Amino acid sequence: MFLTRTEYDRGVNTFSPEGRLFQVEYAIEAIKLGSTAIGLKTKEGVVLAVEKRITSPLLEPSSVEKVMEIDECIGCAMSGLIADARTLVEHARVETQNHRFSYGEPMTVESTTQALCDLALRFGEGDEESMSRPFGVSLLIAGHDEKGPSLYYTDPSGTFWQCNAKAIGSGSEGADSTLQEQYNKDLTLKEAETIALSILKQVMEEKVTPNNVDIAKVAPVYHLYTPAEVEGSH
Amino acid sequence: MFLTRTEYDRGVNTFSPEGRLFQVEYAIEAIKLGSTAIGLKTKEGVVLAVEKRITSPLLEPSSVEKVMEIDECIGCAMSGLIADARTLVEHARVETQNHRFSYGEPMTVESTTQALCDLALRFGEGDEESMSRPFGVSLLIAGHDEKGPSLYYTDPSGTFWQCNAKAIGSGSEGADSTLQEQYNKDLTLKEAETIALSILKQVMEEKVTPNNVDIAKVAPVYHLYTPAEVEGSH
Amino acid sequence: MFLTRTEYDRGVNTFSPEGRLFQVEYAIEAIKLGSTAIGLKTKEGVVLAVEKRITSPLLEPSSVEKVMEIDECIGCAMSGLIADARTLVEHARVETQNHRFSYGEPMTVESTTQALCDLALRFGEGDEESMSRPFGVSLLIAGHDEKGPSLYYTDPSGTFWQCNAKAIGSGSEGADSTLQEQYNKDLTLKEAETIALSILKQVMEEKVTPNNVDIAKVAPVYHLYTPAEVEGSH
Amino acid sequence: MFLTRTEYDRGVNTFSPEGRLFQVEYAIEAIKLGSTAIGLKTKEGVVLAVEKRITSPLLEPSSVEKVMEIDECIGCAMSGLIADARTLVEHARVETQNHRFSYGEPMTVESTTQALCDLALRFGEGDEESMSRPFGVSLLIAGHDEKGPSLYYTDPSGTFWQCNAKAIGSGSEGADSTLQEQYNKDLTLKEAETIALSILKQVMEEKVTPNNVDIAKVAPVYHLYTPAEVEGSH
Amino acid sequence: MFLTRTEYDRGVNTFSPEGRLFQVEYAIEAIKLGSTAIGLKTKEGVVLAVEKRITSPLLEPSSVEKVMEIDECIGCAMSGLIADARTLVEHARVETQNHRFSYGEPMTVESTTQALCDLALRFGEGDEESMSRPFGVSLLIAGHDEKGPSLYYTDPSGTFWQCNAKAIGSGSEGADSTLQEQYNKDLTLKEAETIALSILKQVMEEKVTPNNVDIAKVAPVYHLYTPAEVEGSH
Amino acid sequence: MFLTRTEYDRGVNTFSPEGRLFQVEYAIEAIKLGSTAIGLKTKEGVVLAVEKRITSPLLEPSSVEKVMEIDECIGCAMSGLIADARTLVEHARVETQNHRFSYGEPMTVESTTQALCDLALRFGEGDEESMSRPFGVSLLIAGHDEKGPSLYYTDPSGTFWQCNAKAIGSGSEGADSTLQEQYNKDLTLKEAETIALSILKQVMEEKVTPNNVDIAKVAPVYHLYTPAEVEGSH
Amino acid sequence: MFLTRTEYDRGVNTFSPEGRLFQVEYAIEAIKLGSTAIGLKTKEGVVLAVEKRITSPLLEPSSVEKVMEIDECIGCAMSGLIADARTLVEHARVETQNHRFSYGEPMTVESTTQALCDLALRFGEGDEESMSRPFGVSLLIAGHDEKGPSLYYTDPSGTFWQCNAKAIGSGSEGADSTLQEQYNKDLTLKEAETIALSILKQVMEEKVTPNNVDIAKVAPVYHLYTPAEVEGSH
Repeated sequence: MFLTRTEYDRGVNTFSPEGRLFQVEYAIEAIKLGSTAIGLKTKEGVVLAVEKRITSPLLEPSSVEKVMEIDECIGCAMSGLIADARTLVEHARVETQNHRFSYGEPMTVESTTQALCDLALRFGEGDEESMSRPFGVSLLIAGHDEKGPSLYYTDPSGTFWQCNAKAIGSGSEGADSTLQEQYNKDLTLKEAETIALSILKQVMEEKVTPNNVDIAKVAPVYHLYTPAEVEGSH
Repeated sequence: MFLTRTEYDRGVNTFSPEGRLFQVEYAIEAIKLGSTAIGLKTKEGVVLAVEKRITSPLLEPSSVEKVMEIDECIGCAMSGLIADARTLVEHARVETQNHRFSYGEPMTVESTTQALCDLALRFGEGDEESMSRPFGVSLLIAGHDEKGPSLYYTDPSGTFWQCNAKAIGSGSEGADSTLQEQYNKDLTLKEAETIALSILKQVMEEKVTPNNVDIAKVAPVYHLYTPAEVEGSH
Repeated sequence: MFLTRTEYDRGVNTFSPEGRLFQVEYAIEAIKLGSTAIGLKTKEGVVLAVEKRITSPLLEPSSVEKVMEIDECIGCAMSGLIADARTLVEHARVETQNHRFSYGEPMTVESTTQALCDLALRFGEGDEESMSRPFGVSLLIAGHDEKGPSLYYTDPSGTFWQCNAKAIGSGSEGADSTLQEQYNKDLTLKEAETIALSILKQVMEEKVTPNNVDIAKVAPVYHLYTPAEVEGSH
Repeated sequence: MFLTRTEYDRGVNTFSPEGRLFQVEYAIEAIKLGSTAIGLKTKEGVVLAVEKRITSPLLEPSSVEKVMEIDECIGCAMSGLIADARTLVEHARVETQNHRFSYGEPMTVESTTQALCDLALRFGEGDEESMSRPFGVSLLIAGHDEKGPSLYYTDPSGTFWQCNAKAIGSGSEGADSTLQEQYNKDLTLKEAETIALSILKQVMEEKVTPNNVDIAKVAPVYHLYTPAEVEGSH
Repeated sequence: MFLTRTEYDRGVNTFSPEGRLFQVEYAIEAIKLGSTAIGLKTKEGVVLAVEKRITSPLLEPSSVEKVMEIDECIGCAMSGLIADARTLVEHARVETQNHRFSYGEPMTVESTTQALCDLALRFGEGDEESMSRPFGVSLLIAGHDEKGPSLYYTDPSGTFWQCNAKAIGSGSEGADSTLQEQYNKDLTLKEAETIALSILKQVMEEKVTPNNVDIAKVAPVYHLYTPAEVEGSH
Repeated sequence: MFLTRTEYDRGVNTFSPEGRLFQVEYAIEAIKLGSTAIGLKTKEGVVLAVEKRITSPLLEPSSVEKVMEIDECIGCAMSGLIADARTLVEHARVETQNHRFSYGEPMTVESTTQALCDLALRFGEGDEESMSRPFGVSLLIAGHDEKGPSLYYTDPSGTFWQCNAKAIGSGSEGADSTLQEQYNKDLTLKEAETIALSILKQVMEEKVTPNNVDIAKVAPVYHLYTPAEVEGSH
Repeated sequence: MFLTRTEYDRGVNTFSPEGRLFQVEYAIEAIKLGSTAIGLKTKEGVVLAVEKRITSPLLEPSSVEKVMEIDECIGCAMSGLIADARTLVEHARVETQNHRFSYGEPMTVESTTQALCDLALRFGEGDEESMSRPFGVSLLIAGHDEKGPSLYYTDPSGTFWQCNAKAIGSGSEGADSTLQEQYNKDLTLKEAETIALSILKQVMEEKVTPNNVDIAKVAPVYHLYTPAEVEGSH
């Protein structure tokens, strides 16, 4: 069984007899090894919270960026290979900038997400910007546009979904079920923040500090919490 | 037997000794894992109905798009890899837009379908827009042009057929035989809708709600049902 | 014996020690799985008749095109992979159109056939229009030019022959021997049509209806029979 | 022994440890399966005679072209893959036409042969016109230029030789020894024709008819025999 | 276990079933064989110290450059393949020069590091400047810009981190733990230098001389110590 | 031993663990199968003599060219694959012509040889003119320029040496030792010719005739002996 | 052990699990088979001395060039594949010429060496000038610029070092230890020459003659010793 499987899973972009794309599935495995990220959408805006793994006390925590701004009202949290995520975010930044320049208005959150996924889907195609393998990263994209706040989740296959709340990374399984219990559409932003942090605490099995989590909100403008704000948020 | 088979099935676009193209057959397997989609053509127009698999209550059902507009009078339902379908639909949208611009009239449904299949056929050719593997998706294309309403069915080999009614995806086998029993050319649009929903109900083994199905009609203009319309349709 | 054979047959365009090109031979196998097509040349014109396999009563028979027009006085019947045939026919249509535009007269049937075969021969060459594998299709090309009516037969190797009568596809072996018995150069077009249909009937083991065969003639203009004409032809 | 051989013979253009190019040798095998062709040079001109294998009585014999004109005073007979031969002949026709246009005089027979072999040699190089495998064909090139009549023989390696007489194809071994016995430089064109036909008769083990042989002469202009002339030539 | 691993680790840029990129991990092994380099950030500036392996007394020690200037206020220390490091440094020099030319001000340390990592990430992509394998080198990038002194650490995956202190190369494990014990943010530049040298001494198990170490500081301008300064620094 | 060898020898241009390039060594084997060629340099000029293998009495001996002119005062003898040699010679002819055109003077013999070897060295590089495998040919290049007569020997690796006398091909081993015994710098051109022919006679084990050898001299102009001159030379 | 090794060593530019690049290591083996070359730097200038292997008394010793001029004040000695060395030297000559033309002054020895190594490093990258395998050659580059005399040593990985004295090739191990014993910075050029020749004598186990060694100096201009000067130098 395992032997015949190995016959198909090295082709970068080839179907197995059961219709599966193994390289995409393996990239998803890369994300299961990643740090946990959580997003919650409320009527007031969206909250993103991510675990930061500081492997040495000599690392500068602020340089381990797990939440990044894409546009004035769009940010994202990531889990998986950080260098891959940076490439995707850089691509999205250029796209949103170009959109503002060409149309004089911000790109919608969905179009931004679609632009990211177009790049992710084209791995193995030999394009100038695409990669020879799938991007080993999942993103939670939080944004605010004329339709109000929204939260998107992307995976390495280039597919995306809109969510009310979502967890990705190594702790995602447990985090997702807690989210399903505690989430409702009428949460305030503050309450969402509290839920996100309490779930991270559980997953990380240690105290949450400004050094080991990143928190950001889009309400309606992207804002990354300062250490003091993180300290104050729990 | 199985061993000699594996000798041929990894070449992306190579014939086996029996004259088969295994990568296309495996892509067709990917569709057998997909959600069920149903299309029925009536004299009044065409109905498309698709099962939506909402894996988590926190997903926004409306972001799981399984029915999409291509042109004012053309829409499609899909089963298989969603990201692949989006690429095909985006290609078709550009083609129909270009046609309108160049000729001052809408593209016919058949030409639109042919344009989609031209792209699907050229996998493995290294073109700019084509993929290095077959597109893992089947489409039901519903449209209305000067010849009246029409329904097309495409598969990953780049082949297409015109149908009166057709089901694709994991439940297609049972759905197709029910369609053969219940379909006749004199159905009203409303009756076709009812048949489609009753078949989906059977396949999905649960109640149909605005959250777990998408319904659309082309009669003669493409229209995606609002949640209220879905609610009212059964 | 079989083992050493497999050593050579996956190279897309490589000779085996006996001087054989296996991928071409396998493509020919794909045609042996295809539906039967028959062509007969008479002094009055050429008749093409093809079996259509309608796998479901919900398929629109007229959308399963097995006979297609190339130019005003050239048509073709096909057996094998339909999507491949469409690419070849589309190529031939462009070539004949270009010829008319450049020279102000129709392209001859032989030149049209040669243009098709040039494309078929160049598989595996990485050209823009060529395929990475042989085209899995045989064509019967019927035409009329200044030399009178003619019938050509092409195979996946890019070779072509002029014939008086020819059958291709799964039933070709039996059909060819019947053709050899019944064909003579003085047949009328009507008689040729009758022979073609009687052979198809034998091969298909069922009644010929407008739904399960396509008939066309080039005499001297290409004409695809309407359902009524098919009904009346036997 | 055989096993180690198979290690080298699939590389399209790679030396084996003994300094052999197996793909070229295998292409030469393809010619040993081909129909027999014979050429004889006399002081009056050159004769080409080729066996035609008409596999079905319904094939149009004149469409199985085994002797083709290249330029006004150059023709060739072929054995092996016909589609490959057509590509080479088409290339030579363009070269000779260009030469006439540029220099106002015909290309010599040797230069024409060299141009053909340059293309044949470059297989596997990824050029626009070259093939990814050796051309599976041998040619007998008959011509007449300012040096008088000449006969060249080319093989798939891109090498060529000038000959007084030469046979290629499945019957070449026996034919070559008969040629050595019967050829002398003082033959008349008529005598050469008679020798060529008597050898073909022997090889084909059946009566020579206008349907199963092609005869052509270059004396000094290329002329393909009409059926009546073939009939009268023996 | 080991066998199945080898199935994946030769693909230059392919995920293993566990979501790992083996070629990157093997490149990291190349660095574990490299000489030890240490960086410490203080409020006054950054110190870099590197072991030099002089394999022969006839080698000119100053030509074994393990610390190099990138821009007026940016330098780096390296461990791994020196030729790879030179390519990265040369790339960074061009980027910082271009930045000065275009914007009339120095590039920030983080942007410089990002530019280096963009190149490192794109191995296997066939770009003009990128490599077909990961760069087998880690860098410690010391710089000074408007945000004050900073120290970055890059690895072959194209990821980077900001650190207070960091060791790379064969002795990095022991060196890192000593750094964690001895480092604090209030060290003077002189104290940092002393710590770096004492750690190198431990790792190298021999006396530190101007021949076997390179020391540099960025405070705020890059300065490589002369032999006399090295002599005087311990 | 042999098994591990086969692991490396199919890579067109890859080092084995012992630092060997097997494809070049195998190409050298191709030359050991070739006909014998001999060159001798005297103060009066250089003599080239080559065995011609006339496999059939019907071959035109003069068309088996084993000695060819490159420029007015440069010629070469060859052993190995004739079609490869023709490509190299054609390249050299273009280079020497271009040189004359650009500088108004002939190219030196060494520069001509270097130009040939530059092309030979770049096999496997995908250049327009280079081959995908080594050229399977050795050349003896005889020339005369301002430095007087000279003789160069090239092999498939793209290396060349200047010699006083040299033999290549299947009989080269015996021929080389006879050359070492009989050669001295004060030979007349006539004596060199006699030595060359007597060695060929030994190697070929038959009488030397104008049909089975080619002789040429560069003294100082290239001259290929007519049959009468060959007849008279022994 | 050996088996797992062979899994990695054929990839032209791929890391093994231990972080090694086998093709580079095998290219270094090619140099260990090469002739011995020695360089010594003195205050007066640099001396290069190389063994020449004259395999036949009929070879012209002066055509076996193992020391070559790069620029007026830069020369190099080589060991390994001569044809590869010629490509590198030709590249360096063009670079130094371009530098003179662009800046009106000679290129420094270090920049020249770096330019050579840039080309050597990029093997396997598909660039126009780079090779598909590592260059199988080491160079000793002797030069003189505004910093005085200098000696560089390059290896196939594209790395270089500055040395006072260095030996490469098959006898390098013994030669290097003798150099360490006998070298000091105050040697005169004459003394350096004597040391180099005495070491070569030891390595070659025969008398040094103008035929079997090349000697050159850069002091400050490149000069290759004439046979008489070689004769006189010992």
